[in-house]
Amino acid sequence: MNRTSLFLLAVAICLAFLSLSVRGQESSKPNFVVIFCDDLGYGDLSCFGNPSIKTPYLDRMAAEGQKWTQFYVASPVCTPSRAGLLTGRYPIRNGMTSAKRVVLFPDSAKGLAPSEVTIAEVLKEKDYATAAVGKWHLGHLPEFLPTNQGFDTYYGIPYSNDMDRVADAPNYREMANDPNWYPDTNSYNVPLMDGEKVIERPADQNTITKRFTEKAVEFIEVNQEKPFFLYLAHSLPHIPLFCHPDFRGKSLGSLYGDVIEEIDWSVGQVLETLRKTGLDKNTVVVFSSDNGPWLSFKTHGGSAGPLRAGKGTTFEGGQRVPTIFWGPGIVEPGMVTEMGSTLDLMKTFAAMSGAESPSDRKMDSFDLSPVLRGDGKSPRTDFHYWTRAEIHAIRSRKWKLHLKQREPINYGKAVELAEPELYDLAADISETYNVAKKYPDVVADLQAKLKAHLADAADSDPDQLVDKIGE
Amino acid sequence: MNRTSLFLLAVAICLAFLSLSVRGQESSKPNFVVIFCDDLGYGDLSCFGNPSIKTPYLDRMAAEGQKWTQFYVASPVCTPSRAGLLTGRYPIRNGMTSAKRVVLFPDSAKGLAPSEVTIAEVLKEKDYATAAVGKWHLGHLPEFLPTNQGFDTYYGIPYSNDMDRVADAPNYREMANDPNWYPDTNSYNVPLMDGEKVIERPADQNTITKRFTEKAVEFIEVNQEKPFFLYLAHSLPHIPLFCHPDFRGKSLGSLYGDVIEEIDWSVGQVLETLRKTGLDKNTVVVFSSDNGPWLSFKTHGGSAGPLRAGKGTTFEGGQRVPTIFWGPGIVEPGMVTEMGSTLDLMKTFAAMSGAESPSDRKMDSFDLSPVLRGDGKSPRTDFHYWTRAEIHAIRSRKWKLHLKQREPINYGKAVELAEPELYDLAADISETYNVAKKYPDVVADLQAKLKAHLADAADSDPDQLVDKIGE
Repeated sequence: MNRTSLFLLAVAICLAFLSLSVRGQESSKPNFVVIFCDDLGYGDLSCFGNPSIKTPYLDRMAAEGQKWTQFYVASPVCTPSRAGLLTGRYPIRNGMTSAKRVVLFPDSAKGLAPSEVTIAEVLKEKDYATAAVGKWHLGHLPEFLPTNQGFDTYYGIPYSNDMDRVADAPNYREMANDPNWYPDTNSYNVPLMDGEKVIERPADQNTITKRFTEKAVEFIEVNQEKPFFLYLAHSLPHIPLFCHPDFRGKSLGSLYGDVIEEIDWSVGQVLETLRKTGLDKNTVVVFSSDNGPWLSFKTHGGSAGPLRAGKGTTFEGGQRVPTIFWGPGIVEPGMVTEMGSTLDLMKTFAAMSGAESPSDRKMDSFDLSPVLRGDGKSPRTDFHYWTRAEIHAIRSRKWKLHLKQREPINYGKAVELAEPELYDLAADISETYNVAKKYPDVVADLQAKLKAHLADAADSDPDQLVDKIGE
Repeated sequence: MNRTSLFLLAVAICLAFLSLSVRGQESSKPNFVVIFCDDLGYGDLSCFGNPSIKTPYLDRMAAEGQKWTQFYVASPVCTPSRAGLLTGRYPIRNGMTSAKRVVLFPDSAKGLAPSEVTIAEVLKEKDYATAAVGKWHLGHLPEFLPTNQGFDTYYGIPYSNDMDRVADAPNYREMANDPNWYPDTNSYNVPLMDGEKVIERPADQNTITKRFTEKAVEFIEVNQEKPFFLYLAHSLPHIPLFCHPDFRGKSLGSLYGDVIEEIDWSVGQVLETLRKTGLDKNTVVVFSSDNGPWLSFKTHGGSAGPLRAGKGTTFEGGQRVPTIFWGPGIVEPGMVTEMGSTLDLMKTFAAMSGAESPSDRKMDSFDLSPVLRGDGKSPRTDFHYWTRAEIHAIRSRKWKLHLKQREPINYGKAVELAEPELYDLAADISETYNVAKKYPDVVADLQAKLKAHLADAADSDPDQLVDKIGE
């Protein structure tokens, strides 16, 4: 071996070590992708039991990853649910649930307070590239947009896809009697934004899932050398339902099925991009939904499967959502029946990336990473069901106590129960058999826990949803 | 090469050809295994959406095979459902459904007529080894037992596991309030039979799933050189619920879950035996249930998932059952949303084995083998919902018309509807939205089909369930 060869060999060895060290650094900072659907029900995916809708990409994702069957969102409606996911705090804490207005509207003057710390902000401290693609719904005025909440870029619609409805649009509730009735995208004057700029209005919702997908894929492809956090929040299957012409009429029997099958395709595109780039070994992808199915819209709403009721209620159908964690190099495959919540993504991602989650405020987040790796139990044993700034129910381990309930359809009036109802969610998956009389000690224990939680939440911030622009 | 070598080479080539030809013959006669559960609901397996019960073996079976989501049994109760499966005929044809008695009982004088032709008899003509293991419920007197219906051997209980109840047994309906209450096997004086001989009474039901499994595995192992048909009809999860001590308390929250998880283990044993023996490449395994969940027994009954109602009713929850076809060398993997029925196993198995299904009587069976191979559509477009010798509903493609209904719980009284109800089963998976008024032509078409079917069934045999011993 001559000197040049020896030198080149030495260089090669150095590069190999360097590469190992870079890889070591990379794997200490996994990438995170959250795919968050809107109003997707617990029973809408074939791997969660839907008999009509085919979701082969999600089925494969579930088979290769972890299917979580007891996974909760922080609220049964959109705005507070998203606030909970991004901050790891019950929306009551930061005024993101309101007795007066269900969610934020185009005339809302506020949003998630800039002083709140989002997952994106936490990960930015560890040099993550961050992108929000899709629906935001945490404030559409500039100071509340993703670009002011830790995201490098934003591409999407700032609130729900049924807002800014034009005056002569057909009555969707009537049209929803036909499972294949297709709405007109011009009936909803929703803006599409890039950063803080409106680039299209009305957004063409026929191609919106496809375009969100393309943006997501592009973000992954350009960030192969840097850890990243992608928040891909599809604006569907919230009504009005739209899908790309390629998917129209392709599912078994309804536009709703077509929409879900396009989202399934979209998930396939994201996972395939991760596989192609080799990033699959160092990325955790979470698929979930912001709340249960909007049953008021009949076959244009989804299914909660075996769970009781849907969106807007604190029954399981309102807040338990179909959730999959995937990451071939990180996540141990299996079905997980332990409890988890979107509230827990904050501490889970922080723990996995070495970032610090906020320590200067009350948090409701638990680190689920031991469960993901398959070497520990979920630290979450309790869950509190808040809706419209009121607590309706509490779960501790398998027991759920209801104190108030809302009618399952159309956000009916909240009713205080004369006697609390107790359900064993492990054995009684559909909340059918009230066993409060049989287990008075469990009822008392849950009531005490609930009282303690209410006391803990008493110093919450004022309502952020109620103020209107110009008022 | 010397002569001896040449000779040995020639012999080797001949043996290779011979082996190929034997294999060719084998693959023209695939083995069939039917695993048939009792009262297992559509929503009881994790691959069909159950959030509490873990069924990893069935999940794998479904992922490797075909998950059928629109698969029907011939009746929402036990005896007629089994008669339909084994004969490929609606039970009304051969008097196996009755207006007077729901099923056969220990005092019943009759059973499935020996003149009926079963799948076992059809396959015997092609030299299949045949075994029935588990629950029979098509007549317990010698002339009606499996050994007189085409099965070489029988090992199991002749009727339901809750029959022959002793006088001082606890009231199961009251005890079922506790999801973990465990019954006493001595409360049910059910016989265990080997052939036509009672070998144990009461059958020890604590170990019955395990023993049925062992018999099934043994049958496969001793029949590796011959095509075979194994009918493994588990007597559970029909109440009273029993499981082997190894499974007791192992599921998330209920004895019902423990029972299903033992059945899942059992399926794993059967499939593993087929893999170990190399027979997996030439065997079709069907997993299904005889009817929907017995909801009257609360958490001791299962779940129909998103489907309406359960056992005893002609809603989907009563007759649509979780069904998997598996056979790595034969069955093309995927989710199948086309229609199929246990009635179709007769013609499917006949077509695949080269046997002749009966041609001297009216049949209600279709050959599903093109769907199994992945090269054709299901020929079944219609299904008729019979219960207690009455027709209650009809399905044609996605449309289902109800004319009569039974209350969902406890086999309530049948009620003739003032106006027929029409459901779009593709879009409306839970039979929630009656659209009869919107589609009068569809209603008329289905009524005409139903009338034609009734005329076709007018020459049915007399009731076989009503006669009692000694009367």
